[in-house]
Amino acid sequence: MDRREEIYAKALELFIKDGYDQTPLSRIANELGMTKANLYHYFKSKEELLFYVHERNQRRDLIATLNTAEKIEDAKDRLVHLIRNYTENSMARDASAKVVIHEIGHLKAEHREIIKNNWKRFFDMVRDSLVELEATGRIKKMNKVFVAFALIGMCSWTLYWFDHSRQETVRELSDTYIDIFFNGVSKR
Amino acid sequence: MDRREEIYAKALELFIKDGYDQTPLSRIANELGMTKANLYHYFKSKEELLFYVHERNQRRDLIATLNTAEKIEDAKDRLVHLIRNYTENSMARDASAKVVIHEIGHLKAEHREIIKNNWKRFFDMVRDSLVELEATGRIKKMNKVFVAFALIGMCSWTLYWFDHSRQETVRELSDTYIDIFFNGVSKR
Repeated sequence: MDRREEIYAKALELFIKDGYDQTPLSRIANELGMTKANLYHYFKSKEELLFYVHERNQRRDLIATLNTAEKIEDAKDRLVHLIRNYTENSMARDASAKVVIHEIGHLKAEHREIIKNNWKRFFDMVRDSLVELEATGRIKKMNKVFVAFALIGMCSWTLYWFDHSRQETVRELSDTYIDIFFNGVSKR
Repeated sequence: MDRREEIYAKALELFIKDGYDQTPLSRIANELGMTKANLYHYFKSKEELLFYVHERNQRRDLIATLNTAEKIEDAKDRLVHLIRNYTENSMARDASAKVVIHEIGHLKAEHREIIKNNWKRFFDMVRDSLVELEATGRIKKMNKVFVAFALIGMCSWTLYWFDHSRQETVRELSDTYIDIFFNGVSKR
């Protein structure tokens, strides 16, 4: 792991443990055996560090999921892929989603915009897939914005209750969400 | 509104706007035209104020919903009531759910315990209702913990995206959740 990655990983670890506000840069420096001045070689401010942590996290999980999903031809297969990978990788793998979602208010507007655009890309892909399925009569007619958020919400809430040490159950979890969702929207 | 209620309401309003950490007691006092010393007549610490704000919020929304639900004989009717009232009152009515959920980490252990017990009562009621429906063959066999959290998550996520000024759409929203959920878990 290069120095930069090491810094982001340590910062994320401490943000998860104590929260962004309660984690001074001096503690991050201490734990890495660096000086604070040295840390500033890698970012301009604590806010910029939080942004890099967010961005790295999204690239690893959400964006990877979206890039693969985009290439899936069939709209239902695409949604199955999104539910499964978003749940297993973005939400159930570790506690980072909590930091990434809760601390977004600390980012300045231009950084928040970049992070929010990735979330928007996720939402749009879910909604567009639902529109496609409805147009071809494979699901019933419903409010697609509400249905898209129902799907995203069901999966996202995982971050609040799932025990990350129980990775052997994540497949059953994403299967349950896929099952409820597609029965839920299918024509009877 | 008595003075105490006025203080809780103002504190909640400022916590929603700026966050708990970024809201000094002196600002709450200022906005109410009180001295800080005067405020301490109503609570012992900022943490205790946050707890009262939480408690008042839960009493108004979640606990009211649970108390009514408890009296509903039929398990499906009970779940419909829970989805509808939790979504419309706890999540879609205003931005307070965000404070109540995000700032819980600032409560000391004994206060957090009281708040968490109310959430647990909600979870237990959902899960027990599912157990009842499964036992009488009205839903298919699934992991009831995962299904209960799918229901709660779908409804709870509302706090992150719903536009609270659009109250005329909350009934369509809770109907959508009820529809997806019961189709989702029913036997085909």
